[in-house]
Amino acid sequence: MKNKPLLTGEKRIIKVGDVTFGEGKPVLIAGPCSVESREQVIQTALELKEVGFHVLRGGVFKPRTSPFDFQGLGLKGLEYLREAGDKAGVPIITEVMDEHNIEAMAELADILQIGSRNMYNYPLLKSVGKVKKPILLKRGMSATIKEWIMAAEYIAQYGNVNIILCERGIRSFDTYTRNTLDLAAVPIMKKETGLPVIVDPSHGTGIKELMMPMSKAALACGADGLMLEVHHDPENALCDGPQSLTPKQFAELKSHL
Amino acid sequence: MKNKPLLTGEKRIIKVGDVTFGEGKPVLIAGPCSVESREQVIQTALELKEVGFHVLRGGVFKPRTSPFDFQGLGLKGLEYLREAGDKAGVPIITEVMDEHNIEAMAELADILQIGSRNMYNYPLLKSVGKVKKPILLKRGMSATIKEWIMAAEYIAQYGNVNIILCERGIRSFDTYTRNTLDLAAVPIMKKETGLPVIVDPSHGTGIKELMMPMSKAALACGADGLMLEVHHDPENALCDGPQSLTPKQFAELKSHL
Amino acid sequence: MKNKPLLTGEKRIIKVGDVTFGEGKPVLIAGPCSVESREQVIQTALELKEVGFHVLRGGVFKPRTSPFDFQGLGLKGLEYLREAGDKAGVPIITEVMDEHNIEAMAELADILQIGSRNMYNYPLLKSVGKVKKPILLKRGMSATIKEWIMAAEYIAQYGNVNIILCERGIRSFDTYTRNTLDLAAVPIMKKETGLPVIVDPSHGTGIKELMMPMSKAALACGADGLMLEVHHDPENALCDGPQSLTPKQFAELKSHL
Amino acid sequence: MKNKPLLTGEKRIIKVGDVTFGEGKPVLIAGPCSVESREQVIQTALELKEVGFHVLRGGVFKPRTSPFDFQGLGLKGLEYLREAGDKAGVPIITEVMDEHNIEAMAELADILQIGSRNMYNYPLLKSVGKVKKPILLKRGMSATIKEWIMAAEYIAQYGNVNIILCERGIRSFDTYTRNTLDLAAVPIMKKETGLPVIVDPSHGTGIKELMMPMSKAALACGADGLMLEVHHDPENALCDGPQSLTPKQFAELKSHL
Repeated sequence: MKNKPLLTGEKRIIKVGDVTFGEGKPVLIAGPCSVESREQVIQTALELKEVGFHVLRGGVFKPRTSPFDFQGLGLKGLEYLREAGDKAGVPIITEVMDEHNIEAMAELADILQIGSRNMYNYPLLKSVGKVKKPILLKRGMSATIKEWIMAAEYIAQYGNVNIILCERGIRSFDTYTRNTLDLAAVPIMKKETGLPVIVDPSHGTGIKELMMPMSKAALACGADGLMLEVHHDPENALCDGPQSLTPKQFAELKSHL
Repeated sequence: MKNKPLLTGEKRIIKVGDVTFGEGKPVLIAGPCSVESREQVIQTALELKEVGFHVLRGGVFKPRTSPFDFQGLGLKGLEYLREAGDKAGVPIITEVMDEHNIEAMAELADILQIGSRNMYNYPLLKSVGKVKKPILLKRGMSATIKEWIMAAEYIAQYGNVNIILCERGIRSFDTYTRNTLDLAAVPIMKKETGLPVIVDPSHGTGIKELMMPMSKAALACGADGLMLEVHHDPENALCDGPQSLTPKQFAELKSHL
Repeated sequence: MKNKPLLTGEKRIIKVGDVTFGEGKPVLIAGPCSVESREQVIQTALELKEVGFHVLRGGVFKPRTSPFDFQGLGLKGLEYLREAGDKAGVPIITEVMDEHNIEAMAELADILQIGSRNMYNYPLLKSVGKVKKPILLKRGMSATIKEWIMAAEYIAQYGNVNIILCERGIRSFDTYTRNTLDLAAVPIMKKETGLPVIVDPSHGTGIKELMMPMSKAALACGADGLMLEVHHDPENALCDGPQSLTPKQFAELKSHL
Repeated sequence: MKNKPLLTGEKRIIKVGDVTFGEGKPVLIAGPCSVESREQVIQTALELKEVGFHVLRGGVFKPRTSPFDFQGLGLKGLEYLREAGDKAGVPIITEVMDEHNIEAMAELADILQIGSRNMYNYPLLKSVGKVKKPILLKRGMSATIKEWIMAAEYIAQYGNVNIILCERGIRSFDTYTRNTLDLAAVPIMKKETGLPVIVDPSHGTGIKELMMPMSKAALACGADGLMLEVHHDPENALCDGPQSLTPKQFAELKSHL
């Protein structure tokens, strides 16, 4: 703990292997909501490799609203994700929910994600502050700009300034979209913190047809990358199928950016 | 009144003099929040003319939260706006709040605006439905997508399908920005109604520094135009000074689109 | 227009015939969402008379989200409501949406209501400010406390301080209830304006089973009355059937207050 | 994990020492936001004892938005709270934020609280599901009714059905109050889950003057208890001073319930 804010707007660039966040070229993170099996994640990764992408995502511990929903494959799933990332030649990112697993996960994953539901989980933020891997910090679903900045500051204060921010939509009164994508947060957070900011239009809208226009808009207002749910077979996905692109749809989207 | 919806997604193009909404080329609407004097609006219009713009905006009846705030110059102000538009060679747009004035205002103005506070004012919507001028319908500050579509449908049902929609930010829990600009509404409303959709980043964010990134983002996701507050002397504006661009700043913004 | 606020917290009592708002005894306003026919409103009024109530409500101009929904019987409906009120021996209240009708409506009605969708309709507020009948001003569905105070101030500034406020729920992210009933607004608005404040749990929750607990809660925190939708045959009501009580259910509720 | 919901509306009564939640008599939980020192918490507890109260509250691990704010005294603070509760002859409740501490805290505390920021922290919910002490589960600051029910179900599924729910206000667009107290949630959650539901007007409004009317309203709509911040010296409190009552103000409030 320092006694003064560390994220004061000074621009930071985050390197993960060959991938760089914040240097102008948008980073494309893609992959399934959940790792469902070894075959599924490897197949998706290889199809994405053909299209061209930069980071493979996949959840292995899933924060599900209902205890009766699929909770993820756990560390075994992370091994599959690692293998898939290696086969595709890209770094991997996965969400941590639990202090107990951080060390084990940090060994296998290249970036650790703090999900929307854990943005206010200060013990978890402190814990990833002590990790030597970059952290992707999603905005809480109804977090104010100020609260989001302070959540990043928690991580920084505990020793880790390699933070990538991710706008993923906020909760509003309208139910047409899953969330309300708050793109103004992109230039605001870049200016306030100096950190790279990416956008997740999959959770931000929940509607496949909006991936293209909102991805373009995100990059147009300065986003340093995109995080997109891609599944080789969305209709049979265990979660978030309706908002998942196929690798082919991802290719189409990529060609228009 | 027809007995079936008229706005079913079929694409419509709206022509106002030489200006066309919905044909690919973004329309730039600019001008002061309020017409404050003949000199002010003419000066702003001439400075904008030098930069290049398409429609002059200016409020003459102002829906102010407080009865103690400046309420606008009324029809006299509209004459000034007309004169300024003519000098700049562009059509003009102004807000109607009151059924009584619609006819008089429709004679002088080229586009009539329904402001955010009146999106649910159904008698007013019906009245402008009978007018032979295009209507710009702003989204209510906490209107759902469905309510906004239905508000447009009111206008259409009463005889006027020349409607331009305008996303201007919705009310959320965060107070960092004046409103939360909901850019996903642009592709959604275009698809649902077929009408042109423009974006007002001035009210949508309330922060001058966000005009540039959010204007770019709006166009990137398909907006048919932008509505921007421009004042020749923002520091002395009677309303919305802090979010108003100078003509010079508008020129800078325009050069980056 | 005075140049200073008139609603500064000084307590006001509003008399309408034998009914008094703001004097400790809660006023019960009841009746159907819409006047649907002479028979319907008279039957409901007579059944309510047996139970005991204070003011008869009924909409004749309805602000409906969709232009295809029932828009009300207009002035003919108001005559029916007047007749029903007279037969029940109680004053009547109905919503005005349109400046054109205010005079005609003020002749027949005892209280004029400004609905939630018109709280920001400043020309309408100014117009009812000139009327010699009490005004019931509902809170806009996402109006801040400050905006609501200012809306009442508009009415007062134009000459009418006989204003009754009505909390009817605000829009939030949750869809379990129709709106989120903000009961803290009751003591706040009483203190800030000095005006009587009533509560509408029908729109505030949209769920029949919540009428009883929320009515009790409203009175417990100081509400000066309640406005409840009561229909003699909710299943066949033209609007708001699911949230309407039968006169018998109203009697049950009344007995528990 | 059972394969079916356990919280299906069957009424449950929770006993903690001599205190019973859900049996008709409202339970008063009072105490400071944070345990600041041994003296402070003992003095507050003894003053509350004179007034009469049922459970002593006090935070020792504080989820603060800013890492620079006071984070609590930790387990040492819990020892002070235990001593204060014993001196006052009442059970104690404190918030757990971290799986690591649950066992140690469950040894000293009588009720463990899951705070608003952790309602979506599923590993924590699972962990307290395995504890043999009652859990007070606060509603997330923008949790829907359904999400709140599911959060309680997580705890129940992992073995602990002794859950008390606490409505503490939700986030809305208005900033007049700290949060919007959603009292309709009280009868809704009682019916949906069968669990006792209490109300926290301190966080729910953030305004001292609203404690009295909102406490009355909470009990009127069926709340099984109240949770109130009480500090012997609010002006010098390390957190939440402005919304804290003095023991004398608490006595005044209690006398009116």
